[in-house]
Amino acid sequence: MGDSASPFSFTLQAVDPHTAARAGRFRTPHGDITTPAFMPVGTQATVKALTPEDLEALGAQIILSNTYHLFLRPGAHVIAKLGGLHRFMHWDHPILTDSGGFQVFSLAHLRRLDEDGVTFRSHIDGSEQRLTPERVIEAEEQLGADVIMCFDECVGHPATPATARDAMERTHRWAERCRRAQTRQDQALFGIVQGGVYQNLRLESAATITALDFPGYAIGGVSVGESKEECWQAVETVAPLLPTYKPRYLMGVGSPEDLVDGVARGIDLFDCVLPTRIARNGTVFTDAGRVTLTRGALREQEAPIDPTCDCYTCSHFSAAYVHHLFKAEELLAYRLASIHNLRYMARLAGRMRQAIFLGEFAAFSETFLSTYRVADESTRQQQREKRLAAWTAIRARLDGAAGAAGTAASEGPGTRRRDPIRGNAVA
Amino acid sequence: MGDSASPFSFTLQAVDPHTAARAGRFRTPHGDITTPAFMPVGTQATVKALTPEDLEALGAQIILSNTYHLFLRPGAHVIAKLGGLHRFMHWDHPILTDSGGFQVFSLAHLRRLDEDGVTFRSHIDGSEQRLTPERVIEAEEQLGADVIMCFDECVGHPATPATARDAMERTHRWAERCRRAQTRQDQALFGIVQGGVYQNLRLESAATITALDFPGYAIGGVSVGESKEECWQAVETVAPLLPTYKPRYLMGVGSPEDLVDGVARGIDLFDCVLPTRIARNGTVFTDAGRVTLTRGALREQEAPIDPTCDCYTCSHFSAAYVHHLFKAEELLAYRLASIHNLRYMARLAGRMRQAIFLGEFAAFSETFLSTYRVADESTRQQQREKRLAAWTAIRARLDGAAGAAGTAASEGPGTRRRDPIRGNAVA
Repeated sequence: MGDSASPFSFTLQAVDPHTAARAGRFRTPHGDITTPAFMPVGTQATVKALTPEDLEALGAQIILSNTYHLFLRPGAHVIAKLGGLHRFMHWDHPILTDSGGFQVFSLAHLRRLDEDGVTFRSHIDGSEQRLTPERVIEAEEQLGADVIMCFDECVGHPATPATARDAMERTHRWAERCRRAQTRQDQALFGIVQGGVYQNLRLESAATITALDFPGYAIGGVSVGESKEECWQAVETVAPLLPTYKPRYLMGVGSPEDLVDGVARGIDLFDCVLPTRIARNGTVFTDAGRVTLTRGALREQEAPIDPTCDCYTCSHFSAAYVHHLFKAEELLAYRLASIHNLRYMARLAGRMRQAIFLGEFAAFSETFLSTYRVADESTRQQQREKRLAAWTAIRARLDGAAGAAGTAASEGPGTRRRDPIRGNAVA
Repeated sequence: MGDSASPFSFTLQAVDPHTAARAGRFRTPHGDITTPAFMPVGTQATVKALTPEDLEALGAQIILSNTYHLFLRPGAHVIAKLGGLHRFMHWDHPILTDSGGFQVFSLAHLRRLDEDGVTFRSHIDGSEQRLTPERVIEAEEQLGADVIMCFDECVGHPATPATARDAMERTHRWAERCRRAQTRQDQALFGIVQGGVYQNLRLESAATITALDFPGYAIGGVSVGESKEECWQAVETVAPLLPTYKPRYLMGVGSPEDLVDGVARGIDLFDCVLPTRIARNGTVFTDAGRVTLTRGALREQEAPIDPTCDCYTCSHFSAAYVHHLFKAEELLAYRLASIHNLRYMARLAGRMRQAIFLGEFAAFSETFLSTYRVADESTRQQQREKRLAAWTAIRARLDGAAGAAGTAASEGPGTRRRDPIRGNAVA
């Protein structure tokens, strides 16, 4: 990075004197990203319910899409033929594609791992598929995102030290292969640090991955079932070992309180389905914590969901109207709530950035965390258990389908049953 | 109309020399409507999946909402308290509210009709509700639409001559009561002609209703299961008896070919859920007829759905992208297809208007109908039978609920089962 021939650069603009928080500017071929930044998730080449114009208006700077999903449908080669992902989804700003490692290892059915790659059945039609580090990089080059991720092996939690080491070492070997496979110079390939909850593995992984000299680094293998404490311990172990002048991305983490906690530990980039998923379930963020839109108290509330918010939803609609849309199960509900939550995340990132410039991040963080009522650990674990139960159900159905056209994809959008791949409950 | 004290006026601007087609301008407190016009349906104070800005951008001049639905949820008094329907849904252009006669008589459960009104169970929670002509007008005044409809009794098809006469005569008595109940002068109350498929009844109804001197007239009791021929026969019987200088509205009719056929018979205003409903099921209009977006031929089509269309969807996305969204069952799919179909209807109305000004409507109509491949009668009847079966299922469930909280409303948005009240399949 900083190489004058590269279309990428990361400029560190301010560092907080009391924490590890940093403010920066990440230059990419499709524009600059000011950090810290939250990246809305558009798994299937669409941030659920929103147009690119909605995303621009709410201040999204970069969005995330998923190689695993697009590889299966419509196919990376189809998107390449149609001019690449930016053109396909009509989004002319930066995009990051996750490699699909997380999906292959946590969702893909009947997977068979070998040193060269992984063979699995598509969750869509049960067809046999194979991904290797080289094939993933080829697909990411066909998609053409600005930032692409290495193909890693992401283990769940809990995992034994031996399992975690095995996956970490394979991730390291695959990272080298990804690096060698890359041919496009207009995409920044980020390395991923693994190692689970084991400090010695995290230290080893950070050293090995940074030695490969990637233009940016991610901390993976978090948000897979471990406690918050274990997650932050891993971040505190790894972040100080990452190069100061390259962007740092904490994968799959992104509730409001997580953003604040992550920035304090030196993270620049975040992504998470949470803001859009809970929006579709009728829950929105405010500085006081989450608000459930279907509660009766909002039925006649003329004020917007959040009077301090400048989003499209809060600028034009009463809380009573959004409440009505959720009670009536109208499609517009999902869009209005998603806009609010993503705008909330963009504003939160902006407020933290400003606090860092002013040297006041510690005070901001303290104030924020003292007033924001977080979802407690037991709620988080319950949500996770529900998702796991749903995955098990989908796998059982695919077992039934046994290689024939699967049935997972035939669930309608918005079936009550939770669908772990496409989102929760309503979409 | 034309009364200088009235905020309403209808100006006839052009009449086709060869057909009954007319072009006009209908002035209302929230703006002018150039006719012929198609009114998108926003049953529950939202045109499914779209914002008011989407509707403005696609050229919608007036939208329709439904008193029956809003009376039950969130309550007309709630909307009144929040400043009326325009403010509630953030739509500052004309609105027409249907009275709910059609819903009460075709959808409402366990209804008991008497001369004064009708008692029924809510399809939402099974609670007992009562509507009379006076109560409907009160609700329509609380909602505050620009155009409000009389509370009528709409019989289905087939109906015996005695049943049709009975309902028609009650509709006439109720029309007088609606007229007397009206207190607001900034709303135009339209009379509704009934009479089913019986020409003598249609003639009698047109004479009786026009004698009440309403500022506009609707032809009701069509699109209830009769054949297209019977529908157009009713229109041909009634339209010539309606005052030339007042707007004419054909209720619940609005496929592209119906718009052309209706305009040729002197109709100015149309509404129908068809364009948005079939959009959500992945079917769009083009001048060649309907196109199914999920068909494989579109998988790699770089051209838009309709290269002649100027809508947001066709201006920014390939057919391949919209195809992908439908295959992936993404929420954005329903929005993009709805925008296209409503823009198609707005453009079709505009093209007819221009043809009328040019005296070329007959030629336009002939060309259009010779190239537009219509859904055949058997398809129409099959669709209707499916809807009727779904209604029966919902009624059966309400019978089970027997006055307790009903179960119809607990169906998620987008359950595969068709929901006749809120829309089809996906929303």
